Amino acid sequence: MEDNKDQAQLVRLQDEEESESMTELFPSLDEVEQIIGYDFKDKSLLRRAFTHSSYRDESYERLEYLGDSVLNLLIASRDYFGNPDLPPGRLTRLRAANVDTEKLARVAVKHDLYKYLRHKKPLLDGQIREFMDAIPEYPFHSNGLIDAPKDLADMVESTIGAIFIDSNSSLDTTWKVIKSLLEPRITLAMLQAHPVTKFYELCQKHRFKVQFVDLWKESGAIEVFVDNKFVGKGMYNPKKLIALNRAANNAYNVIVKNLSIEDNNKDDHD
Amino acid sequence: MEDNKDQAQLVRLQDEEESESMTELFPSLDEVEQIIGYDFKDKSLLRRAFTHSSYRDESYERLEYLGDSVLNLLIASRDYFGNPDLPPGRLTRLRAANVDTEKLARVAVKHDLYKYLRHKKPLLDGQIREFMDAIPEYPFHSNGLIDAPKDLADMVESTIGAIFIDSNSSLDTTWKVIKSLLEPRITLAMLQAHPVTKFYELCQKHRFKVQFVDLWKESGAIEVFVDNKFVGKGMYNPKKLIALNRAANNAYNVIVKNLSIEDNNKDDHD
Repeated sequence: MEDNKDQAQLVRLQDEEESESMTELFPSLDEVEQIIGYDFKDKSLLRRAFTHSSYRDESYERLEYLGDSVLNLLIASRDYFGNPDLPPGRLTRLRAANVDTEKLARVAVKHDLYKYLRHKKPLLDGQIREFMDAIPEYPFHSNGLIDAPKDLADMVESTIGAIFIDSNSSLDTTWKVIKSLLEPRITLAMLQAHPVTKFYELCQKHRFKVQFVDLWKESGAIEVFVDNKFVGKGMYNPKKLIALNRAANNAYNVIVKNLSIEDNNKDDHD
Repeated sequence: MEDNKDQAQLVRLQDEEESESMTELFPSLDEVEQIIGYDFKDKSLLRRAFTHSSYRDESYERLEYLGDSVLNLLIASRDYFGNPDLPPGRLTRLRAANVDTEKLARVAVKHDLYKYLRHKKPLLDGQIREFMDAIPEYPFHSNGLIDAPKDLADMVESTIGAIFIDSNSSLDTTWKVIKSLLEPRITLAMLQAHPVTKFYELCQKHRFKVQFVDLWKESGAIEVFVDNKFVGKGMYNPKKLIALNRAANNAYNVIVKNLSIEDNNKDDHD
C-alpha cells in the first residue's frame, strides 16, 4: 500500500516536471485560437480540450461529454429550422451523418487541429497518418470504408464543450465559431446507404445468391461470392467491420460493372 | 389516382371539422401554460406539442426530436457544473436516469400534463391509468419494473422543444421553465443497479446456481430457480422484459429475506 502511494507520488512528480516542459513544447495555444477563430478568456479550458487522458490527469473527457450534447443540439436545431417538413426519422439520419466519428475526425484533420493534441498513445500518430492518406478517395464521407481515429473526433467535441463553457453557455457564440469549421455539411442528397445494405439490395433485386467468406483471422480479408463465383474482397487488419464494409463495397462495384457490360453486349446484339 | 385525391380531400375536410370542434373541446391551452408557468407567444407551438400523431398530421414528433436534444444538453450542463469531479461515465449514467422514458412519463403524470394530450390511441388512456396506479410503490424510479407509456415522455420532450423555439432558442429560459417540473432530480446516491444485475451479483457472491424459466408465452410469467428451488417469479403480459425484471427483483428480495433469516437463526444458536 505504502509502495503504491510512493509510486503515485513519483508519477505525479514526473508529471509536474513534464507539464512544465510541455508548456514550453506547447506554446501553440494561440495558433489553435487563430484556427478556430475564437479567443478564450480561460486558456486552461482550451489547453484541457487538447489534452488526451494518456497525457495527464486533467484530460478532455468531461469537456467532450458536454461538447457532444452541445453539438447534437446545434445540429438538431439547424436541421429542424432548415428543413421545416422533414420527418424526425430523416432528421435523425441527417444529424448522425454530421456528428459521427469520421465526420468530426475529418474536421480535426482539415483544420490541422490534430497537430495540437497532446497525448502519449504510441500508435495514434500512425493511425492519423493512415486516415489522412485515405481521405482523398472519399471527399465527404466513406460510409464505414476507412478507419477514423476516435480521439480526433473526441477532441473536436471537447473543443466545442470548451467554447460553450468559455462563452457562458452561449449556443449563439458556439455556433458562430464552429459552423464554418464543420463544413462541408453533409446534406440529405449526400446521404448514402451503407455499403453492406447497398450490396444486399442489389443482389436481392437480381436474385443473386450471396456468400461472405470470413478469412479475417487468417489473412485480414473477407471474400465475397455471388452465385458461387468470387466477385470481390475487402481487407483491413485492425478492424473486421471495416474489412466487411470494404468487401461489400468492392463486390458491389464489380457487379455493377459486370451488369453494365452485359447491358452493352445486349445493345450490340440488338 | 383521382380517387385517392378525393379521399385525401375528404379526410382533410373531416380533419378540419374535427379540429374546429376540438378547439372547443380543447380550450385548456391556458391551463397548460399555468401548469408549466410559461406564456407562449406562439400558441400553435404549444398546441402542436400536445398533439399525438394519431390525432392529426401536425403532431409533436419534430418538436420532440428537438426537445430531446435540448433536454440532453440542459441535464448534461447541470451535471457537468454541479459535479466538477465526476468522470464522464458517471455523468452519462446520471443523465440517462434523469431523461429516460419512465422519468419523463412521471413528469407528465405528476403535473397532470397527460390530461391535455390529444390522441386517438384507443389503449393509451388505460396504459396511463395502469402506470399511475403503479407509481406509488416506487417513489422515484422503478428501474424497469413498471411500464411507462412512451407517448407521455415524448410529450414532455415536445413541450421542452416548444418552449425552446418560442423563447428564441434560449437555454436559460427553457431551463428556468422546466427545472422545477423535472423534480425530483435523481441523484447519484439514488442510482440503483438494474434488478437483473443486482440479482446476478447476489447469486454470484453466494455461488448460487441460477435458472430463469420462460413461461411468458404460455402465462405471461417468468420463473426463477436458485439451486434448483423455485424462489420467485415476475409477470407482465404486454412486455416480456418487464416480466423478466420483475422476476429478478422478486427472486432477489426472497433471497435477501431468506439469508437474513438464516443469519438470525445462526445468531440464535451462537
